Amino acid sequence: MTGFDATAVRVVACDIFGTTVDWRTGVAGQVAAVAAEHGVDLDGGVFADDWRDRYLPSMRRVNDGLRDWAYLDTLHRESLDALLGDRGLADAFDGAARDRLVRVWHRLPAWPDAADGLARLRRRHVVAALSNGGFALMTHLIKAAGLPFDCVLSAELARAYKPAPEAYLTAARLLDVAPSQILMVACHTWDIDGARAAGLATAFLERPLEKGPAREADRASATTSDLTVTGFPQLADVLGC
Amino acid sequence: MTGFDATAVRVVACDIFGTTVDWRTGVAGQVAAVAAEHGVDLDGGVFADDWRDRYLPSMRRVNDGLRDWAYLDTLHRESLDALLGDRGLADAFDGAARDRLVRVWHRLPAWPDAADGLARLRRRHVVAALSNGGFALMTHLIKAAGLPFDCVLSAELARAYKPAPEAYLTAARLLDVAPSQILMVACHTWDIDGARAAGLATAFLERPLEKGPAREADRASATTSDLTVTGFPQLADVLGC
Repeated sequence: MTGFDATAVRVVACDIFGTTVDWRTGVAGQVAAVAAEHGVDLDGGVFADDWRDRYLPSMRRVNDGLRDWAYLDTLHRESLDALLGDRGLADAFDGAARDRLVRVWHRLPAWPDAADGLARLRRRHVVAALSNGGFALMTHLIKAAGLPFDCVLSAELARAYKPAPEAYLTAARLLDVAPSQILMVACHTWDIDGARAAGLATAFLERPLEKGPAREADRASATTSDLTVTGFPQLADVLGC
Repeated sequence: MTGFDATAVRVVACDIFGTTVDWRTGVAGQVAAVAAEHGVDLDGGVFADDWRDRYLPSMRRVNDGLRDWAYLDTLHRESLDALLGDRGLADAFDGAARDRLVRVWHRLPAWPDAADGLARLRRRHVVAALSNGGFALMTHLIKAAGLPFDCVLSAELARAYKPAPEAYLTAARLLDVAPSQILMVACHTWDIDGARAAGLATAFLERPLEKGPAREADRASATTSDLTVTGFPQLADVLGC
């Protein structure tokens, strides 16, 4: 953590899925409820894991130019369709049910420390959501979770997904700051690596339960970041907010 | 107002300069303060009027393709430079002072009814700022004024200024709604006309003092809108929020 200058931070940019909200608990519970309505027996947590496993590969195909830009709802729908097919559930959910399932990602519970910590960070910084989720998805999610962000940013505005540098640099351009004046907060090594490569400052926020109890979450020790914290209040402490 | 269906509204998009914040009072006061510091005698209100008079023409040159995209801070700086030259004040303000003057547009007082009315509208709708101000400017302004928007949208995201249809249609695309599901709230006829032409629903919010006591503000009777209101709380009443 040597050499990090907290006074240079003007924008705190926060990853959302995993870092700010507990996607797995939210997706698992809502999927299980929709499945029960349709008389389908499935484990919501395992389904959430399998769906999320298709997340990074689906975005990589966009970033690698193998397909045109598509926002996250579209990628979620395609990966849902594939997942249901693989599980022999293609006939269990019609189009309307699948639309509902895609929308579960629009309504997820915040980690308990998030709202208070973000409110403290806002006192001295512009606090932005910077997610691979689409702009509408992010707006719905943040509104429903009551999270006090100053603005919503999305990979959709760059038409490139994190960890592509354009996703981070578009945020810097829109907020009219140098990349080094943004502190990216994330619980995934690939996001920290992408932000650092784009010239942002980085804070690894450890979320040990981000992938549920059976899988190991990313750890700060697996990458290099300017800061390592265990929650948003601790980040506010470190930044003197 | 016949034929307007309030239940179809999913997004309330609000113009900012004039509609939500009192740009003239804010610019006049801050300009007068900077001028006094520099020993320059000027009427802040008249200066604000003259500066604002260059606003629409500067954006029109972008929309007409006479110049490349430039965000509002850049247009404000250019029009400031021209204005100071015309007034024989070119030597009175150096670059740093001009930077400060451009930034006065980032910090303007909200109209007294705005925060409460927006908070009510948020209960049932996504409430977005939709301004010709740049994304950073809008984020700073909304943060400083404590206005409870769900998200910030800016002409900068479309690289086209209102009243160009792209500015409104980009908002609809990013929020994943049909243009007709957005209610545009504005105090200027040109903004209402642009929104209506792009297929949005419209609410003319009358701000009689928007251009100060000596100039006549735009009036709802000069255009056609779905709704006419005199403040955000009345709009919340009409929409049942």
